[in-house]
Amino acid sequence: MRLGLGQFNSVVGDIAGNVETMSRIYRQAMEKDVDLLVFPELAACGYPPEDLLYKRHFLAANEKAVRELASRCPEKTIIVGFAQHYHSNTYNAAAVLRGGKVETVYRKGLLPNYGVFDEGRYFRPGAEPVVLDIGDVRIVVTICADIWTLEWMADFFKETKGIQLIVNISASPFHAGKIETRKEVVADCAKRFKSAVCYCNLVGGQDELVFDGRSIIADSAGNVAAMAKAFEEDLLIADIEVKSSGKVRVSAAEKASVQPANMVEEIYGALVLGTRDYTIKNGFKRVLIGLSGGVDSSLVAVLAVEALGKDAVCGITMPSKFNSAETIGDAGKLAENLGIEFYTIPISDVLNEFDSTLGKVSGWNNKGAAYENLQARIRGTILMSFSNQLGALVLTTGNKSETAVGYSTLYGDMAGGFAVIKDVYKTQVYRLVEYINQRAGRDVIPRDVITRIPSAELRENQKDTDSLPDYDILDEVLKGYIELDKSAKELIDEGLDETVVKWVMRAVDRNEYKRRQSPPGVKITPKAFGKDRRMPIVNKYSSLGE
Amino acid sequence: MRLGLGQFNSVVGDIAGNVETMSRIYRQAMEKDVDLLVFPELAACGYPPEDLLYKRHFLAANEKAVRELASRCPEKTIIVGFAQHYHSNTYNAAAVLRGGKVETVYRKGLLPNYGVFDEGRYFRPGAEPVVLDIGDVRIVVTICADIWTLEWMADFFKETKGIQLIVNISASPFHAGKIETRKEVVADCAKRFKSAVCYCNLVGGQDELVFDGRSIIADSAGNVAAMAKAFEEDLLIADIEVKSSGKVRVSAAEKASVQPANMVEEIYGALVLGTRDYTIKNGFKRVLIGLSGGVDSSLVAVLAVEALGKDAVCGITMPSKFNSAETIGDAGKLAENLGIEFYTIPISDVLNEFDSTLGKVSGWNNKGAAYENLQARIRGTILMSFSNQLGALVLTTGNKSETAVGYSTLYGDMAGGFAVIKDVYKTQVYRLVEYINQRAGRDVIPRDVITRIPSAELRENQKDTDSLPDYDILDEVLKGYIELDKSAKELIDEGLDETVVKWVMRAVDRNEYKRRQSPPGVKITPKAFGKDRRMPIVNKYSSLGE
Repeated sequence: MRLGLGQFNSVVGDIAGNVETMSRIYRQAMEKDVDLLVFPELAACGYPPEDLLYKRHFLAANEKAVRELASRCPEKTIIVGFAQHYHSNTYNAAAVLRGGKVETVYRKGLLPNYGVFDEGRYFRPGAEPVVLDIGDVRIVVTICADIWTLEWMADFFKETKGIQLIVNISASPFHAGKIETRKEVVADCAKRFKSAVCYCNLVGGQDELVFDGRSIIADSAGNVAAMAKAFEEDLLIADIEVKSSGKVRVSAAEKASVQPANMVEEIYGALVLGTRDYTIKNGFKRVLIGLSGGVDSSLVAVLAVEALGKDAVCGITMPSKFNSAETIGDAGKLAENLGIEFYTIPISDVLNEFDSTLGKVSGWNNKGAAYENLQARIRGTILMSFSNQLGALVLTTGNKSETAVGYSTLYGDMAGGFAVIKDVYKTQVYRLVEYINQRAGRDVIPRDVITRIPSAELRENQKDTDSLPDYDILDEVLKGYIELDKSAKELIDEGLDETVVKWVMRAVDRNEYKRRQSPPGVKITPKAFGKDRRMPIVNKYSSLGE
Repeated sequence: MRLGLGQFNSVVGDIAGNVETMSRIYRQAMEKDVDLLVFPELAACGYPPEDLLYKRHFLAANEKAVRELASRCPEKTIIVGFAQHYHSNTYNAAAVLRGGKVETVYRKGLLPNYGVFDEGRYFRPGAEPVVLDIGDVRIVVTICADIWTLEWMADFFKETKGIQLIVNISASPFHAGKIETRKEVVADCAKRFKSAVCYCNLVGGQDELVFDGRSIIADSAGNVAAMAKAFEEDLLIADIEVKSSGKVRVSAAEKASVQPANMVEEIYGALVLGTRDYTIKNGFKRVLIGLSGGVDSSLVAVLAVEALGKDAVCGITMPSKFNSAETIGDAGKLAENLGIEFYTIPISDVLNEFDSTLGKVSGWNNKGAAYENLQARIRGTILMSFSNQLGALVLTTGNKSETAVGYSTLYGDMAGGFAVIKDVYKTQVYRLVEYINQRAGRDVIPRDVITRIPSAELRENQKDTDSLPDYDILDEVLKGYIELDKSAKELIDEGLDETVVKWVMRAVDRNEYKRRQSPPGVKITPKAFGKDRRMPIVNKYSSLGE
């Protein structure tokens, strides 16, 4: 039996477009004699559709699309994800299409409702296994989380005998290193049920999520026999053969695709895809980036060029008297290295005019934080003015370390439509720029940008470390506090400095209001700001303890 | 048996403060010979604590607080909400405190996971009824949603005989008119179980939610015998008496509190409480408002003065050449009527300087939308500069109709910490200002502000109706589309104009990205923007149909 996994970039709400893409992939699969073609979770309507699922007409449209796909593709068997409305309930479902019709429907049993997932908000769990036979292979259908809890599965399938292939349709969001967990899940499942497992993942960016593809087919011993490409559409084909021993063998039809070599490479891939899809799926053709000559905005510019091509990227540097000639020069050098359009718009005249206008009210102080924020807001306004004028999307350049402690200006450097690296710690930013230069074989990002001591350049001789701990320490505290929900005591017991730990925790808590108004950005870590971490703004709790 | 409902303003994360408040209310209740004192859902830690519930140390602190409350209040029985961590699961629980100890714990059975609720994210459902006897009254404990599904309750309590009082601890967020639904729920529950029902609600503002109090005690015939105050702390006391007929009588200890007379009055109360609590709980002592002389900012100023007192409110008007003498004058007149601090800061010089700076890049056009947005962003920047300088919270003034269709400028008039009226339709804005003037017996809000044709005054002779449908029609379409998820066809079939319906739907869909960066504001309608309505930004679905 020849199996094909149609890993594709399903777009939320583009029901007609998704059917078109699946029909195209079906024709490819037909040419390669595929017997069973599998598409990802909710492939018909895109994942996650969120509150679109409350619209009855949306549900009806996606159900109709599945029937249309069936009628267009009558020759072989298809398994495809869609949202099913049935007896006043909605299900996260998989349709089995055969002979031009929807033959049967499986409904997801385990609905994740943690992290970025809200499936309990929309769906009822299903309760019935679905079994189908193709050739001599006995197949059961599962959806995403179903295979992540083997005890549940064992109970669910206790009446189902002779399983040889477990089909799992998924929409599993990326975070760095997650692929290893997925491989384990697939292998454990295969071994437990002595069955081959095929795991078909989505690919593409959707708001703050990236789906990285890398669909997997494992044999009944749990060996990964085939793996689809990372971050792009792929049709992964393998032959499934049941041996007389009962073992299920998997033979990949083509040679293995090249996979990301390490975590930096996969983060880079996710950021590029997330940026490309957010921009293009929202209908933008161009992006604008404020280039400061610093490492964060340089990284974002490189990612944007990789995502969209150099002609789609415009850099603007907006110097004040606090910017050094070196950083201004480096912004220009970077733009030149990338071959992007580049403008210099000094902000001094506007800054002076603002200062004199604000000075008319007593109490205005042009030496403090308000004056620093003012500079950032003038830059934000300039970028947004060109954004409005040119119809270009502004990419913001704040990293996770800054975003966490609020080292950023609301409506200033935070102004824009997509915050590309908001989930990338500063220490990871450095790893990414080194990777970029290494890969290019030259300093695309000028060496000085990387080695210079970081500064926001909003006052004379400012350094980030005037206000922040060293980034390697800051990032360690942030991981413990944000991703692992540790208390101050736990972190201090692990050897971190008490003063730093307490300062960081207070800063993270105090700046929730800023993050709430931040644009979305690509999730890279196990817990990103956004729908992954839902903290109240009004919050008197302190993790500092007594 | 004397029952007391301790409806109070529990603060999220202020565990020690909440215990203090409950101890104070306990002493009051002791003086009034209360036998059973009931506090709201999750009263110990505040509601909703959101992802604080993922912190083990937070859970431990709130459990410790409940034990402390028990030891401080040994004389009578208390029922209090808290989050219980038990055998690796977390429960939305009610502790029964007696004799200085936690005697038993009830765990909520029905966990709402729709609208603003995410309880499935955090909690496991409980499965055991809890029964206690006080005097001759047999009591069962329930939590919020438990009593909203009578079939579930009937099944849950099928083994529990002789129920005479159903205690329900709640945290039920306000929306206009919801009180009628709650009364019905309580009455239906009482009648079904032939039992008195007491419903103890939270009061206070928490981010975008307001809890309006109005706790209810009903007798076994479903008659509401006592009701606590709206929008403030209250200790509602009643005697529960089981008659020989089996009927349960409820006698209120004090005369009924005055309740809001109509929906406009309750919306006004919710906006005031929401604004006060967001400001004060976040540690602010002052607010800033950009006063345009229009009806929205005038309303927000009145609400702020009611919430915080006139000395805490500062109005700033920021005229350009497009503002008429009348609107500038009205802003000043309003400030004078309210007795608030008031400044005039003209933006023309900064606007001209920006224009000349932006004009250095070819393609800049000072006639179009970018130039209009620029004016709004200069104003936003001025307000934020003073906010930073003075430590004052900026209140934004956009209403729901504008927010829905994106008739607002991101980082301009949308810049600020709290969007007071973001869930108030423009047609409701007019009802509220009429109510305010009527109540005051004078035109606190100048008559001209109400009668003048609305304009953003960002270009010559601009009127809102140049860009928008009439507000009464706009608001009708918005209610159908946003709150009821209707399709274009359904709305057109109801007699709404096709062109308007389609324009509005497209505008709502297209502006999701703006709303995502909006500050929170008070939920007033059954479906507010924010956690109540979770739409994807990348979204190719159109509700317009074929």
